[in-house]
Amino acid sequence: MVGYAHRRKTREKARALGSGFEVADSLEQAVSSADLVLLASPVCTFEAIFKDMASHLPDQCIVTDVGSTKVQIHQWAAAYLPKGVIYVGSHPMAGSEQSGLEYARDDLFERALCLVTCRKNTPDWAVETVSRLWKTLGCRVKCLLPDQHDRIVARISHVPHVMAASLMNASHPDDLFYTGKGFVDTSRVASGPEEVWTDILLTNAQHVSRGIDKTIAELTKLKAAIQTGRRSRVMQLLNQAREKRAKMIQDKISRKELY
Amino acid sequence: MVGYAHRRKTREKARALGSGFEVADSLEQAVSSADLVLLASPVCTFEAIFKDMASHLPDQCIVTDVGSTKVQIHQWAAAYLPKGVIYVGSHPMAGSEQSGLEYARDDLFERALCLVTCRKNTPDWAVETVSRLWKTLGCRVKCLLPDQHDRIVARISHVPHVMAASLMNASHPDDLFYTGKGFVDTSRVASGPEEVWTDILLTNAQHVSRGIDKTIAELTKLKAAIQTGRRSRVMQLLNQAREKRAKMIQDKISRKELY
Repeated sequence: MVGYAHRRKTREKARALGSGFEVADSLEQAVSSADLVLLASPVCTFEAIFKDMASHLPDQCIVTDVGSTKVQIHQWAAAYLPKGVIYVGSHPMAGSEQSGLEYARDDLFERALCLVTCRKNTPDWAVETVSRLWKTLGCRVKCLLPDQHDRIVARISHVPHVMAASLMNASHPDDLFYTGKGFVDTSRVASGPEEVWTDILLTNAQHVSRGIDKTIAELTKLKAAIQTGRRSRVMQLLNQAREKRAKMIQDKISRKELY
Repeated sequence: MVGYAHRRKTREKARALGSGFEVADSLEQAVSSADLVLLASPVCTFEAIFKDMASHLPDQCIVTDVGSTKVQIHQWAAAYLPKGVIYVGSHPMAGSEQSGLEYARDDLFERALCLVTCRKNTPDWAVETVSRLWKTLGCRVKCLLPDQHDRIVARISHVPHVMAASLMNASHPDDLFYTGKGFVDTSRVASGPEEVWTDILLTNAQHVSRGIDKTIAELTKLKAAIQTGRRSRVMQLLNQAREKRAKMIQDKISRKELY
């Protein structure tokens, strides 16, 4: 295992932490004898990294990543990686709003879902290898097409992020003194690093925009019912939300994702 | 201490749990020698309860509650409670999305914020008594005017609830398989009981509607920036949200509300 980070400081920290892998001092050195390369930087850095790596990657090398959108990355991979190199997308649905080597955890992937993406012409053996990697780390793996992936994660991850950020931005600083656990939880993901999230939202603009529209439509429905005092309508909308969530939680418990 | 619940089953459960207080079989019996009455039922039941209690309450008795809105309750109190009875509002910001005697916890109020509301003519000694009650249970207490209270909680609690419900309602059932911790947290409050929340939203309709509008405005801002690919604008909006939340969390840690 060879690690590489573009900041010298991060590489020094990794060496100091004695992370059990060699730390290379250049991208070339890091990838030139790799069977599998795993990128873990903001999505929009991948275009340049693919270009920089291209001439150093061994034939039959697999490139994967932990980026949160996939259509754009598959396009860059097709455009910039050499023919003998295979790109397979990975999106392990784990992590927290914190970032940096010091927040590393060896149980991060246990029972987490990892979405693996490939195109119709991606060789099965490469998809298999990447899936096995995540399973070994404790993940459950689901394979999706890139566009299918981006549509789903827009709704379950990117739109919630936009909502949490909008909730924070709509709130008056003086009110934040009064917030309780509900607000803290509802807004939690808004603490994610904005460089990472800007890339995610910009590389999934269409699906995210559509998801925001849908959420605004639901907010508007509830607002209309509240403003006109239609008790049974408000009750029905809240009941629908509660039951949908209860089913989601129940399903997660039965799959041992939650306890 | 005397407890009363309108469902016979709940009263029997309370007796069986041996909760350390007497369980009365009628509202009259429960309140007729009370120094302080504490209501803990959905806000819209208070109108009828005030009327039912009125003739049984001793002179100089204090009535308070744990309802989440206050303007409407103060109005009902002024209209239905006898002159010698003093209403002071209480809103302990604690609890979970679960309900029922079996979820009772003796540490529920520790370091929680309790908002106490009174009108300009409420006697100080009554406000003092109610504040002392909550402090004894472990709360930090803040006194507010009813309208001030309703405006603040609309923004920090009622609007987040509407957002969580709308997020659930906007989501496709098939997608919920893929949700991770972010979605689970962002939507958590939507599991609250709809009877309670319908009352809350309907008795705070104006402030909640205004809060929803503000949030929709923020969602629309972010959507516009995403759709038009304005990187620096997306980054700025996400950064503003992250920094606002970081300050909120830091302040909470310094007040020992969070660790």
